[in-house]
Amino acid sequence: MSFPYITEIAQQTPTKIVLLVADGLGGFPNESGKSELETAKTPHLDTLAAESALGLTIPAYPGITVGSGAGHLALFGYDPLKYLIKRGVMEALGTGIELDKGDVAARGNFCTVDASGTITDRRAGRIPTEESAPLAERLNAAKLDGAKVKVYPVKDHRFVAVFSGEGLLDEVSDSDPQREGKPPLEVRALAPGSEKMAKVANQFSKQVRELLAKEKRANMGLVRGFSMMPKVPSMAEQFLLNPACISAYPMYRGLSRIVGMKILNGGNSFREELAALKRHWAEHDFFFIHYKYTDSAGEDGDFARKVKMIEEFDAYLPEVLALKPDVLVITGDHSTPSVLKAHSWHPVPILLHGKYSGKDGIAKFTERNCAKGSLGQFPGSASLVLAMANAFKLNKFGA
Amino acid sequence: MSFPYITEIAQQTPTKIVLLVADGLGGFPNESGKSELETAKTPHLDTLAAESALGLTIPAYPGITVGSGAGHLALFGYDPLKYLIKRGVMEALGTGIELDKGDVAARGNFCTVDASGTITDRRAGRIPTEESAPLAERLNAAKLDGAKVKVYPVKDHRFVAVFSGEGLLDEVSDSDPQREGKPPLEVRALAPGSEKMAKVANQFSKQVRELLAKEKRANMGLVRGFSMMPKVPSMAEQFLLNPACISAYPMYRGLSRIVGMKILNGGNSFREELAALKRHWAEHDFFFIHYKYTDSAGEDGDFARKVKMIEEFDAYLPEVLALKPDVLVITGDHSTPSVLKAHSWHPVPILLHGKYSGKDGIAKFTERNCAKGSLGQFPGSASLVLAMANAFKLNKFGA
Repeated sequence: MSFPYITEIAQQTPTKIVLLVADGLGGFPNESGKSELETAKTPHLDTLAAESALGLTIPAYPGITVGSGAGHLALFGYDPLKYLIKRGVMEALGTGIELDKGDVAARGNFCTVDASGTITDRRAGRIPTEESAPLAERLNAAKLDGAKVKVYPVKDHRFVAVFSGEGLLDEVSDSDPQREGKPPLEVRALAPGSEKMAKVANQFSKQVRELLAKEKRANMGLVRGFSMMPKVPSMAEQFLLNPACISAYPMYRGLSRIVGMKILNGGNSFREELAALKRHWAEHDFFFIHYKYTDSAGEDGDFARKVKMIEEFDAYLPEVLALKPDVLVITGDHSTPSVLKAHSWHPVPILLHGKYSGKDGIAKFTERNCAKGSLGQFPGSASLVLAMANAFKLNKFGA
Repeated sequence: MSFPYITEIAQQTPTKIVLLVADGLGGFPNESGKSELETAKTPHLDTLAAESALGLTIPAYPGITVGSGAGHLALFGYDPLKYLIKRGVMEALGTGIELDKGDVAARGNFCTVDASGTITDRRAGRIPTEESAPLAERLNAAKLDGAKVKVYPVKDHRFVAVFSGEGLLDEVSDSDPQREGKPPLEVRALAPGSEKMAKVANQFSKQVRELLAKEKRANMGLVRGFSMMPKVPSMAEQFLLNPACISAYPMYRGLSRIVGMKILNGGNSFREELAALKRHWAEHDFFFIHYKYTDSAGEDGDFARKVKMIEEFDAYLPEVLALKPDVLVITGDHSTPSVLKAHSWHPVPILLHGKYSGKDGIAKFTERNCAKGSLGQFPGSASLVLAMANAFKLNKFGA
């Protein structure tokens, strides 16, 4: 739950908040008995931690593992149970596609079907991107009644289909049966109003089959996760902030666009992101900066690389501190323990630094130390409220 | 959120709960590195703390600074997001006015307007009470259609206007534009049903101008925060308690009246409050006792005085302990760090003592020690539930 009266008590001030997200930051001990954060040499984080308030956030609910969408929405101050970001939209955002109002995005897979139309390989032999990209391009030839489709290649067997046209809604079922030995499914409307989308999706499936008929491997496409951009009040409306996003990766820029952040050019690396932060420092009162590499290493199950990525993150910290933000929050959107090679449900370490954050005096920023921090455990979406409070951007609630 | 089945599981027992509220108790380190609680010499609290369970409460939501109304409602077991106490009602309660059902209270300011009606001083030069009190009295001459107004002097330029009559509702805008260089605003209905209140308020404004026309400084009045008493189920209904309030200050008696407490005569000091506690010890199973002076010192930014007020509070503690309450809760309604000279968002230290509360063995009652206590961090409105549980006033939930 988020705080329902936040807009009424929010006030604009010149103070600056920096939200530094190391993606998938939280980890777990490997056979050494220590987690990635516990193993990494992080002199700057250590010094900062001792002078900050520490705690753990719960992105959605205890025990719940969240995707990047839900995790970031929470950090941006929104209840991830209220605003759902579904598969098609996430895939579009990750591909750098800007969805317009009314667009419905779906995730697509090239697949192989036999003469009877039964799926024999859901991933078309994991066809490489060089082969699949021209096929995705070819699907743009599909002609639909009262709608258009634009197909974007992604990676290997994956593509994104974006449907646009009057009266499309996203409450429809998938054509992907998610198993082999079955034919692609008819797309059905799951709620009144979504009938046109279902009809258009079925037309698309039929034409995909025709357009790819002569291919050997990728002779069909499956679509799933039809979804539209969630209607989220902007951070300017909701929190009276003037927020900016700095991310080298399209997905996080897309998520930031959902909440109305100004997207700054973060280049292609964290170094370039920090350069952008300095360049635009005067222009915003809230900066979201994204560090991707902790998550990628965790997802790959590469404990040593995650440790190294944390150490690199630490080395950049003085550049952020030199700007003297009034409030600095360092956290992750979720945990990604290398030993699990995946996102996990473990609460996420958070560090809050400001003149009135308090100093816990805990000299290392780790999962176990954060469990002893003065912030306790709290909902991920409350971290923005705490940051705003510490930046004196909130008035008193109630007389 | 409060526990929705509390009434079903509540039971009456002879056990006694004392809720001892040191207003604005939580503080923050000053340049010495220690907070007020950390600095104060509190031998009785120290001994008690070691034999109690400690924790931190969050009155409304992490990062949210609450007013006294919301903070106390939470301590009385109510969700402060559900029952809002607005400015007019708080001002009336603080002035010792008993509002009847259907009354609408507004906070008033005497102000200065020029010949064209533009506000030149929102506080009429902070006119002293001796001058403003007779003017407030004069405003009682206002004649309104289908309603009456009673005006009470407060302090300096402030007054309270209480409107009564059939069909008044409080969803109306303010006449106070909250800035100079503008004329007073027309009061507008903000929801259906509040039209009569808006009309009556505008009649009042017109007559205030006429009644004060010959004054030099206070020649007009502005009103804001129109509000009625919130409809709150009594503590007797909700918790099956027989509660009493002991407070030397009218605001806290007023807040206690909202939840149906019996108001005992607390005299004019904490010493007299404790005398009342002893006198009425046999008559109730729940006592709320209010200690004001910690908050006043914090609001004044007087660190040393807040330390001293905590030490005085500590000195009185043996008198409460001598009564051997089954459960004793010591906490604040919010934090008021002297360094901020205001209420703050920082979680509030709480101490719970009872035969089965557990003993944390932490030998000093401070903000940082409470962050390590066995109660953890929890919503302010849960403290009553914990107190009732420890007093065996709650049955099992669910079969």
